[in-house]
Amino acid sequence: MNTQDETAALKADKKLFIKMVVSNWELQNQRMNGWLAQLSDERLLEPVAEGKNRAVYLLGHLIAVNDGMISLLGLGERLYPELDEAFVKNPDRAFDQIPPVAELRDKWANLNQVLSRYFAELDAQEWFSKHNAVSDDAFAQEPHRNKLNVLINRTNHQAYHLGQLIFLKA
Amino acid sequence: MNTQDETAALKADKKLFIKMVVSNWELQNQRMNGWLAQLSDERLLEPVAEGKNRAVYLLGHLIAVNDGMISLLGLGERLYPELDEAFVKNPDRAFDQIPPVAELRDKWANLNQVLSRYFAELDAQEWFSKHNAVSDDAFAQEPHRNKLNVLINRTNHQAYHLGQLIFLKA
Repeated sequence: MNTQDETAALKADKKLFIKMVVSNWELQNQRMNGWLAQLSDERLLEPVAEGKNRAVYLLGHLIAVNDGMISLLGLGERLYPELDEAFVKNPDRAFDQIPPVAELRDKWANLNQVLSRYFAELDAQEWFSKHNAVSDDAFAQEPHRNKLNVLINRTNHQAYHLGQLIFLKA
Repeated sequence: MNTQDETAALKADKKLFIKMVVSNWELQNQRMNGWLAQLSDERLLEPVAEGKNRAVYLLGHLIAVNDGMISLLGLGERLYPELDEAFVKNPDRAFDQIPPVAELRDKWANLNQVLSRYFAELDAQEWFSKHNAVSDDAFAQEPHRNKLNVLINRTNHQAYHLGQLIFLKA
């Protein structure tokens, strides 16, 4: 292979692995959506197992953490930073009032649309640039701390909680 | 950037991406090991939540599924194909006899060492080659169905079950 062909092949590989990461993220969303569609709002107010988090808390938690990617990846303004208080900074049942399940469902669906759009617009070089929670110096030492790595990490985080959510059956 | 510099940068990105995927896999293993170290063999015989799989079943399931990567990625002979019967092809409690917890712990630790060694030996081009459950024709159409994608998928699978396992406390 000459250098030009090799460069073209490497560019194709780079697009391919971004696609792999985004596709695995979308697969987790599809599974989450399939599960969500089967459960009533009332059912989501129940804990996923005795003494564990309520499903509604895990749903709010996933929205808040995933929404955090918007600022972490420098994509724009977060949609729902107000959810951090009830769903990230505090454990389940810390507050008497949390948003209604129907509202959280809408936010979840809207957030995924917005994230998908942002992800589609980000070019290959940007995916390999540093995220906003790492300094220039640290990034020079640890170039794997890029935006794509954040998405890999958040996909695993979502899979982890989906494994818990599916304990609640329709 | 001239073409040679660009090619070198793209090669570095490719290695970096493989490192990111392998590191995220290792991170899940570390979390699993941290959890395993806290629980007695007796405790692992309990279900992770009422009416759900026993922890020992999920441990055996993760060993069997991860061991399956050895053949799927063409790395060599599987170590423990005999575990598929009790931990993949059948649900928990299908058999009166399953391997002792201590034996499964050893297999888990050994498998991870063997997989880490295989992963370290695989070169960048091999990671982007097709895995053994996809045909040449299908791979030509869907080049993301490569070996690296299997590892991304298995990492999510492990995170999913780890989310369930941690319901069992020391």
